[in-house]
Amino acid sequence: VAERGETAGHFADRLIQGVRKHGHPLCLGLDPHLDRIPELFRRGAMEPRDPATADAVEAFLAAVLERAAPRVAVVKPQIACFEQLGWPGLRALARVVERARAQGLLVLLDAKRADIASTAEAYARAYLEPQSALAVDAITANPYLGNDSLAPFVERARRHGRGVFVLVATSNPGSADLQGLRLEDGKTVAEAVAASLRERCEALAGPATGWSSLGAVVGATQPQSAERIRAALPRALFLVPGFGEQGASAREAVRGFVPGPGGLEGGIVNAARSVLFGEREGGAADAGQWEQGFDARLARTIEALAEAVRS
Amino acid sequence: VAERGETAGHFADRLIQGVRKHGHPLCLGLDPHLDRIPELFRRGAMEPRDPATADAVEAFLAAVLERAAPRVAVVKPQIACFEQLGWPGLRALARVVERARAQGLLVLLDAKRADIASTAEAYARAYLEPQSALAVDAITANPYLGNDSLAPFVERARRHGRGVFVLVATSNPGSADLQGLRLEDGKTVAEAVAASLRERCEALAGPATGWSSLGAVVGATQPQSAERIRAALPRALFLVPGFGEQGASAREAVRGFVPGPGGLEGGIVNAARSVLFGEREGGAADAGQWEQGFDARLARTIEALAEAVRS
Repeated sequence: VAERGETAGHFADRLIQGVRKHGHPLCLGLDPHLDRIPELFRRGAMEPRDPATADAVEAFLAAVLERAAPRVAVVKPQIACFEQLGWPGLRALARVVERARAQGLLVLLDAKRADIASTAEAYARAYLEPQSALAVDAITANPYLGNDSLAPFVERARRHGRGVFVLVATSNPGSADLQGLRLEDGKTVAEAVAASLRERCEALAGPATGWSSLGAVVGATQPQSAERIRAALPRALFLVPGFGEQGASAREAVRGFVPGPGGLEGGIVNAARSVLFGEREGGAADAGQWEQGFDARLARTIEALAEAVRS
Repeated sequence: VAERGETAGHFADRLIQGVRKHGHPLCLGLDPHLDRIPELFRRGAMEPRDPATADAVEAFLAAVLERAAPRVAVVKPQIACFEQLGWPGLRALARVVERARAQGLLVLLDAKRADIASTAEAYARAYLEPQSALAVDAITANPYLGNDSLAPFVERARRHGRGVFVLVATSNPGSADLQGLRLEDGKTVAEAVAASLRERCEALAGPATGWSSLGAVVGATQPQSAERIRAALPRALFLVPGFGEQGASAREAVRGFVPGPGGLEGGIVNAARSVLFGEREGGAADAGQWEQGFDARLARTIEALAEAVRS
């Protein structure tokens, strides 16, 4: 029997097979911003220190997962939203992750962790070991500390069929402050980070799809750099934030994708707030009304991305 | 009355006043590596998933704090060591932090967090708000996402008398992979990050000491860059890792310091494993023997740093 949390196979193969099956690259972001959680699920004043708040977050995300599990391959919890609730938040996150995996979803934890190697070992043990208390399928990591700091994550990807998405070009307005600095060889810092990942990326290519379990975060708000990063990392799956609430279109979001068996492929496109939260949903009269609103937003988002990869 | 976790005054002023009072810049790192926790405190097999392990970590650090509190100004818990224990680890961390602050210590949480601004808000709320479940005095942050991603931390530093140490030049062997890349203007990436912090650093200078609550992480293993970063950031307190177990000498660790009222000043030097763990201490026969070993390692480390700042 498989160990607790153990999963068979290669992360990128499993992810892309899921994307092909569903016919779209949506990754549903689980970012439970407290002020936007619908009335239906709120408990008390939603103070971060109140353990009831973590319960409300868990109940909200359980409802989200129930609606989304049949329709997407992967979800991406944002750990900061849970950390702000203290340890009850981390306990809620562990339960949400367990629930998602039991429903057949892949879980990519957005933690953007990084530290010197001996400390990064502890992060890798925390999230990428099959027996860990909070085992997920993949994690995001920050490259500022250099190659040795990423090694513990890459090693778990290889050994346990996990995935790592390294920040390359992020989606925020200030991303160019550092990532866009130009080096003496003419490359940007982001392009240099991409180039530095190439060898390890190739080494983690999947036997079934050729896509690698060492991926890159490439914001949808930077379509030009997506093409250059794709040239540097032909096998990297892109995790694309910035679609939806952050303003990029579906067409921009898939700019780094390439032709595959069923359309453009090569990554996943995250949408969180634009699917999780409806404008007037605080006022949803009952669960049925909330479900209807959520299903409609999810279907719209899926359709926009399915359309973008078909063309 | 002060709010829970509220502290009066300016972070850098409080820190440097503590350093002056104690006569040395040691920051005691709280990195409870499971395999090195002394026999005396171990419970069961020390499996990360077993909640008894978090209890053992808490008991070990309580003993450490009791010995260290009268002799140092600041401690630095490494959150990765707690995260690997799941939510019971975070609960243990919250208790360790509360205990340290009750003993008059400043707590600098080594979390190296970074995300886009809306998410960094959640991290800032988690750790730098006086009312949060895990309120600390300062945090480390990663600059890869750019200036807007640091803003929520800087804003809390200003508003609540907290501190932020931004990674500039880290102490690990791979630090130069990205931080050492040379830009077209001849600067390294690390030097560019330092320059980008200058204005905000000046704005957070303390009324009593002139030192800023926006500091920089500058590894002791990089003494040459310490001088250039000091030139770029004359008011930044340096958090200096790499002394002790990572190999740098006390003299190298204070290379970026400048003459002050009681000797060289301008930062804190972290030592964790070399103080927390004795070579043969697994075999300490009883609490008295462990205390003796710990006190001796702490005294040796303090003396080495006190000597380096005197000269």
